Amino acid sequence: MRIALDAASGDLGPEVCVDGALRASAETGEEVVLVGPRAVLEGILAKRSLGAAKITVVDAPDVIGMNEHPAKAVRQKPQSSIVVACDMVARGEADAVFSPGNTGATMAAALLKIQRIKGVERPAIAIPMPTINGVSLLLDGGANAECRPHHLLQFALMGSIYYSSLTGVESPTVGLLNVGEEPEKGNDLTIQTHKLLAASGLNFIGNVEGRDIPFGKANVVVCDGFVGNVVLKFAEGIGRALFDMIKEEIGKSLLLKIGGALARPAFVSVKRRLDDSEYGGAPLLGVNGVTLIGHGRSNAKAVYNAIKAAVKTKRDGVTNQIALAVQNYAQLISEV
Amino acid sequence: MRIALDAASGDLGPEVCVDGALRASAETGEEVVLVGPRAVLEGILAKRSLGAAKITVVDAPDVIGMNEHPAKAVRQKPQSSIVVACDMVARGEADAVFSPGNTGATMAAALLKIQRIKGVERPAIAIPMPTINGVSLLLDGGANAECRPHHLLQFALMGSIYYSSLTGVESPTVGLLNVGEEPEKGNDLTIQTHKLLAASGLNFIGNVEGRDIPFGKANVVVCDGFVGNVVLKFAEGIGRALFDMIKEEIGKSLLLKIGGALARPAFVSVKRRLDDSEYGGAPLLGVNGVTLIGHGRSNAKAVYNAIKAAVKTKRDGVTNQIALAVQNYAQLISEV
Repeated sequence: MRIALDAASGDLGPEVCVDGALRASAETGEEVVLVGPRAVLEGILAKRSLGAAKITVVDAPDVIGMNEHPAKAVRQKPQSSIVVACDMVARGEADAVFSPGNTGATMAAALLKIQRIKGVERPAIAIPMPTINGVSLLLDGGANAECRPHHLLQFALMGSIYYSSLTGVESPTVGLLNVGEEPEKGNDLTIQTHKLLAASGLNFIGNVEGRDIPFGKANVVVCDGFVGNVVLKFAEGIGRALFDMIKEEIGKSLLLKIGGALARPAFVSVKRRLDDSEYGGAPLLGVNGVTLIGHGRSNAKAVYNAIKAAVKTKRDGVTNQIALAVQNYAQLISEV
Repeated sequence: MRIALDAASGDLGPEVCVDGALRASAETGEEVVLVGPRAVLEGILAKRSLGAAKITVVDAPDVIGMNEHPAKAVRQKPQSSIVVACDMVARGEADAVFSPGNTGATMAAALLKIQRIKGVERPAIAIPMPTINGVSLLLDGGANAECRPHHLLQFALMGSIYYSSLTGVESPTVGLLNVGEEPEKGNDLTIQTHKLLAASGLNFIGNVEGRDIPFGKANVVVCDGFVGNVVLKFAEGIGRALFDMIKEEIGKSLLLKIGGALARPAFVSVKRRLDDSEYGGAPLLGVNGVTLIGHGRSNAKAVYNAIKAAVKTKRDGVTNQIALAVQNYAQLISEV
């Protein structure tokens, strides 16, 4: 198996990508293809010991910046690391791709090159969210700002399949993110989606509310990409704000500082439990090849975990499972 | 001034309402009317010393439960404390109302009895949210699951007026909750709303993302009631989940426990900074009289703060200010 790694677009530079790739390749036994400016990548590799890792380099002289317009950049930079890496999957030269670069550009490149699975109308970004009760999968995390009910049904289906691969849970619970528990609550989208999910045969547990997410009430939480993106970024912000506040308050006296220092390992544990680099990347589900998207700030550990996730997703045949399931659900969807 | 307090519908029972009312009345010098079953309320009052408080009782034998269907319950229980209290404002017998009961029923009763300000299409619930940088106001917090752009413009207008009354800030910053900073980001609703807000003359600072909310990037954050409600409840859940996690981790060794005990005052400070009972209630902006809605779990402090907020809102003439502003904006809205 070969995993194409966009090693040039992350905020932290190519070194962390190379380090993550070395570790992941050695551990999984699979080949990792570093995609980016050849001289730079070979320069970094020359200073590392390969060990058991199988690493190759594919040249991609261009880079798409974090603030470039996704669709435009993908069109104008066919030699960029993101586009070249996606192209490798499209041409069968790689089995999966991971990019810690511009999320929109990675999506655009994947849709353009790898394309959608037949029958999937809207690929969705599935965000692994740490909760007090294990990981939950929130989707769509931002690929589709406007959605229709059958899109959300497909998200639930694709999310359930990926969740099973990620965790081993056989029939993951699915919750519809809404503003109340009752089926008739919410907006047109959620009211219609509720009916579809109830008839889907998935392990649908009904509506979940915002407060249920951090407690992991459902394994898979579906919503449109607008709501999902707001929630995802809000979680990021509130985590940082809370730790900032605790730090500030602990700094206010010597005694508090001593207490804080003694209790520090507890905070480190909490941070580790909330650390999204444990999952490394969020899959773009519904495209016809394993595509994972990482945070711009992905460090070596996040890259390592993302490559491992890519390998596992490919080994478990998630893309094929989704293609089959979508076929089987075509009837249900066409009835809406 | 007379404030009508629904003293019968909160989760914590009428005692906390009476205690909050006594303290708020004594401090503000205004009369608080306890609305609920007369015998119960007079029984509680008999055990308290009135001091400087001006307290009266208006009988309302019925109570609307937390899980009753709002519109149906309001129709079927005209003698319930929520409906009677709203009716007092409608008939000019009270200047403001606060209820810690069923949120939907309070909204329904206020809309039915107090009615909308002329020109306001959709009253909205404005949620004071503690941030690392002072309080922000998020609206709509859940009154309207589906919104159109000019509704959000009215939310921004009403929110700015209320925020000024709440904090003294003269020209509050307004942010549009969205999935990216650029004006063209988001869904149809936000793209159109962005144009309206940019032309509004309000202190519009553009889009804000989920991660900006906990840092107080905008004083007033507008969104539809679906998104606002999800965010509000998610914040509630994530706060609880984080403190649960910290407690759990600190319980894992004696040394951690000692550190935790020493650092405890810092946690208490953080919790106090995040305590929404400091604001007591969320106003239903756009109805033709001061209406505040509280959390079902409102304690005596929350009731006290809500009554103080009601008094201030009435003294500042927020309802009249909104009525005037909506008239002035009618032109802008009609152009959409």
